Amino acid sequence: MVTKSQIKQIKQLKFKKFREKTGLFVAEGEKVVLELLQANFGFHYIFSTIENFDIDSVIISNDQMKKITHFKNSSNYLGVFIKPIYDYKILNESETIVALDHISDPGNLGTIIRTCDWYGVKHIICSRNSVDCFNSKVVQASMGSISRVFCYYMDLPDYLKKINHMIYGTDLNSRSIYDTSFKKKSVFVFGNESNGISNKVINITDEQISIPKKNKVVNSLNIASSVSILLAENFRQNKKAIRK
Amino acid sequence: MVTKSQIKQIKQLKFKKFREKTGLFVAEGEKVVLELLQANFGFHYIFSTIENFDIDSVIISNDQMKKITHFKNSSNYLGVFIKPIYDYKILNESETIVALDHISDPGNLGTIIRTCDWYGVKHIICSRNSVDCFNSKVVQASMGSISRVFCYYMDLPDYLKKINHMIYGTDLNSRSIYDTSFKKKSVFVFGNESNGISNKVINITDEQISIPKKNKVVNSLNIASSVSILLAENFRQNKKAIRK
Repeated sequence: MVTKSQIKQIKQLKFKKFREKTGLFVAEGEKVVLELLQANFGFHYIFSTIENFDIDSVIISNDQMKKITHFKNSSNYLGVFIKPIYDYKILNESETIVALDHISDPGNLGTIIRTCDWYGVKHIICSRNSVDCFNSKVVQASMGSISRVFCYYMDLPDYLKKINHMIYGTDLNSRSIYDTSFKKKSVFVFGNESNGISNKVINITDEQISIPKKNKVVNSLNIASSVSILLAENFRQNKKAIRK
Repeated sequence: MVTKSQIKQIKQLKFKKFREKTGLFVAEGEKVVLELLQANFGFHYIFSTIENFDIDSVIISNDQMKKITHFKNSSNYLGVFIKPIYDYKILNESETIVALDHISDPGNLGTIIRTCDWYGVKHIICSRNSVDCFNSKVVQASMGSISRVFCYYMDLPDYLKKINHMIYGTDLNSRSIYDTSFKKKSVFVFGNESNGISNKVINITDEQISIPKKNKVVNSLNIASSVSILLAENFRQNKKAIRK
């Protein structure tokens, strides 16, 4: 069963300030909870409506699950996990880095984390005003990739100034990604869903690149779609380079 | 102002059966409403909390907008539009077609519609058990592209059997999209978020293709990301072919 104080805590973890205060976050759904367990994430509790899910899981009723879920529709699994401690040194050694300037939609961030995982990109830098990666909707949309891809929140211009990577900014009217040979050590910067990359960040980029479109009437592409297309092209170029 | 009967109708339009019964749908947000108006979609009402939005718009208060919005957070614009009548003949003449087998997430469908628009793909075929493209969340996520991209709901195997296009099915372990030369007249089939393409549909595809990944541990990619990567590669190949 779930105690009253557990219910209270899990509800509070919807809010960033409680996640920061406690160092905990909530993950729901079989795939997500299983992948976090497999990646050896520490946890406080694992609740399940199904028997024999995990050696440490506590069986609860569907009604109890409905009380603690962060979503409209509850799943059969919910875990309260400990946020990992990030190693900033590893970040600098990373070949491909994705940087997000004020990303605000949790579903978009989760999808980007998932795509980064697909392309072996382990590190995402987010400006401090971006949505928190341990927001339950981000965790959910990442489909478990949150266990392998790390989001670092920092002053974006400040960090980009210090790094040795080639910094590519993405916009709508620059050189085509297909006419650009990406450097091995690259940072790809993507802007806010409505306003693009902020001027402060644009000033630090080395090159502006764009995803070419066929329909000239259209003036925007979803940010998670943009990240997918760019990382795919980066992967294609690297693969071609290896083959040669 | 909004009348009681209008409030009732707009609330009912959250449900597919009322959209089907009335032939109407709800669109919210400045960009979406404006693009539908520009595309000459018929409408019953346009409500706005801001003066001088459109010649036909009715000014209402924020509190009234909160009563009629389909979302948690209301925007300043809401329109009740008439669903368009689709011309099935045009569909067959289309070069690139995206087919979705049992897509269920409205945000994913909206994002796919937006990506199709970017790449000039005007027609999406959805199996009948797919989410309705006039669901408010789909309309919202399409960011106005719903005014230019049309979703046809039909028996997928039945339709694919009749068409002359090359039919590509997408899965996780087939020939790489980078080792495939896409035909000019192509249908790209994508499966359900959890279960992939159904066997009935797989049997009708001409070729199975996959998006290669770098991280072998990962076993899934968001469907809207997959569509983005595939349509980008199709566009790149076509552009290259024109240049030659």
